[in-house]
Amino acid sequence: MKFASCPELAAACHDLPAGDAAAAAAVAARDTTLTKPAGSLGRLEEAVAWLARWQGRNPPRLERVDILVFAGNHGVTAQGVSAYPAAVTAQMVANFAAGGAAINQLARIADARLRVLPLSLDRPTADFTTSAAMSEQEFLAAVEIGAEAVAPETDLVCLGEMGIGNTTAAAALCAALFGGGGDRWAGRGTGVDDAGLARKRAVIDRALARHSERLADPLACAAAFGGRELAAILGATLAARRRRIPVLLDGFVCTAAGAPLAKLYPGALDHAMAAHVSAEAGHRLLLAELRLRPLLDLGMRLGEASGAAVAALLLRAALACHLGMATFAQAGVAEKAPD
Amino acid sequence: MKFASCPELAAACHDLPAGDAAAAAAVAARDTTLTKPAGSLGRLEEAVAWLARWQGRNPPRLERVDILVFAGNHGVTAQGVSAYPAAVTAQMVANFAAGGAAINQLARIADARLRVLPLSLDRPTADFTTSAAMSEQEFLAAVEIGAEAVAPETDLVCLGEMGIGNTTAAAALCAALFGGGGDRWAGRGTGVDDAGLARKRAVIDRALARHSERLADPLACAAAFGGRELAAILGATLAARRRRIPVLLDGFVCTAAGAPLAKLYPGALDHAMAAHVSAEAGHRLLLAELRLRPLLDLGMRLGEASGAAVAALLLRAALACHLGMATFAQAGVAEKAPD
Repeated sequence: MKFASCPELAAACHDLPAGDAAAAAAVAARDTTLTKPAGSLGRLEEAVAWLARWQGRNPPRLERVDILVFAGNHGVTAQGVSAYPAAVTAQMVANFAAGGAAINQLARIADARLRVLPLSLDRPTADFTTSAAMSEQEFLAAVEIGAEAVAPETDLVCLGEMGIGNTTAAAALCAALFGGGGDRWAGRGTGVDDAGLARKRAVIDRALARHSERLADPLACAAAFGGRELAAILGATLAARRRRIPVLLDGFVCTAAGAPLAKLYPGALDHAMAAHVSAEAGHRLLLAELRLRPLLDLGMRLGEASGAAVAALLLRAALACHLGMATFAQAGVAEKAPD
Repeated sequence: MKFASCPELAAACHDLPAGDAAAAAAVAARDTTLTKPAGSLGRLEEAVAWLARWQGRNPPRLERVDILVFAGNHGVTAQGVSAYPAAVTAQMVANFAAGGAAINQLARIADARLRVLPLSLDRPTADFTTSAAMSEQEFLAAVEIGAEAVAPETDLVCLGEMGIGNTTAAAALCAALFGGGGDRWAGRGTGVDDAGLARKRAVIDRALARHSERLADPLACAAAFGGRELAAILGATLAARRRRIPVLLDGFVCTAAGAPLAKLYPGALDHAMAAHVSAEAGHRLLLAELRLRPLLDLGMRLGEASGAAVAALLLRAALACHLGMATFAQAGVAEKAPD
């Protein structure tokens, strides 16, 4: 999936496959026959129907679950917006490779394949307070890497990121897309103190003023404020839709990365579920803007697709119930008396 | 664990082991060394410290996780308070034995042992609108069965129930313990219609008037309004505390069953975590009364320990992170700059 220009990418967002309503309806119909009060598994039931709708398959399956973690570096770290030095991005990528990060443990528990894709870590994006973080071609190259990382035979893809400075990029992108300034969108990220938070807000406000002519164009905003890992998540989200693969979005940065798609076409994230709401300040606001309802609310704020991996566990539980439960008829259990 | 009288049981609630603060502190100390921003796994980190505190072990373990589902029948079903006939309790117990219920699938996914304990299903409790549901001796016998079901070598116990009519019993018990009448506590249970809900509320109000002299005594309330499965959950919760086994409470009925312990002694449920908040109307209120913060909010309302089993998955994920992650020093990742 390769785009020669942002207008070509924008056009692709208006030509997305719809979900398979019949597959979702078949799941819902079977659910009413299973030995439980109708609807009593709540969002677990909804999740199975959602998997069926976007896989286009009844019943859905979770044989192959991929976790894709994209990593990028950010010129805006020069402004003192993170509690950690920029070198930590590459150090954490090494930690992923060695199996020592949270996502390694969670991928094992969720029986998912973890793939980490570092994106030109030795070449940070430009500091977006002075120029666009990426040129159109840099942005599109990262989008393509994300899109190509989505294997067609995957049943569910969990998206996540690592990038020191990227909550500042995500907050700036949200401010550009949804309005409000640094006050509305900046949070403490990996743990900046009050002075760091104030710097972060000011950086965002300066960047919004610097790029004011781009604010009406969601993809121009993604290139100006985002990072390569955010662009790759956008590409992966779009490619998953076209390949009929449901997506679990992780936290604030990951959701912000996909948001330009929803600005271009309101239904573009219908195949994406918000795995959780992060403790990072802007995430709850962003989910409300996107009308995404998170599955989990555990005060997590790690990134790395960690929330998505935990949510994948719940989808496995949901599917096990749907596939394994007996029907009222099979079990000889009396059904509800007619109302 | 056998009690000759309710006063003896009440006295036991005032003589409970405290948690192991040193084990919890050791978990928290290791957490600050792991390759993630401090606290960024949110409630997953808290959960591991909670396991350590109540197991009295650092690190905690989850080698043996038991799910105990107690089943009982309720004379109050004669009042038309359930959408399902009372025969469904025994039919569902047969379904558990055959492996066809939701909890069978969830126990497998959570790598937990499921044990179902039917309690005199052919002898329902008395209709509590006319007399106490159980005598003191019947109540204590059920408490003992629950207590004995908790194996000392268990690392975590998930409690749940099955019993047509038991959301009415639970709502009446909550009204007795925490005030308010049927309006405050009754919900739709397995799915009663508006007329059924009105009957349920009226039944609760009549029962509160009938047993007004008992309302100051939490255990007398448990015997008067509860059921054998609720009494067994109370016994299991108490026994788990004495045997240093953390407890995951399931939904409304299960939490109501344990509530008399907290009325007798405010810290009696400190070793119990609310696995989820159910869609059953009274559960959110009850959790607020008990100051329990649910881990999950998925709109589930099935019972059977289903919410507890899903939460057990999260505890496994949390413990895997704690045990498996590399430290900053091991991974060569730079730590946060000092504030």
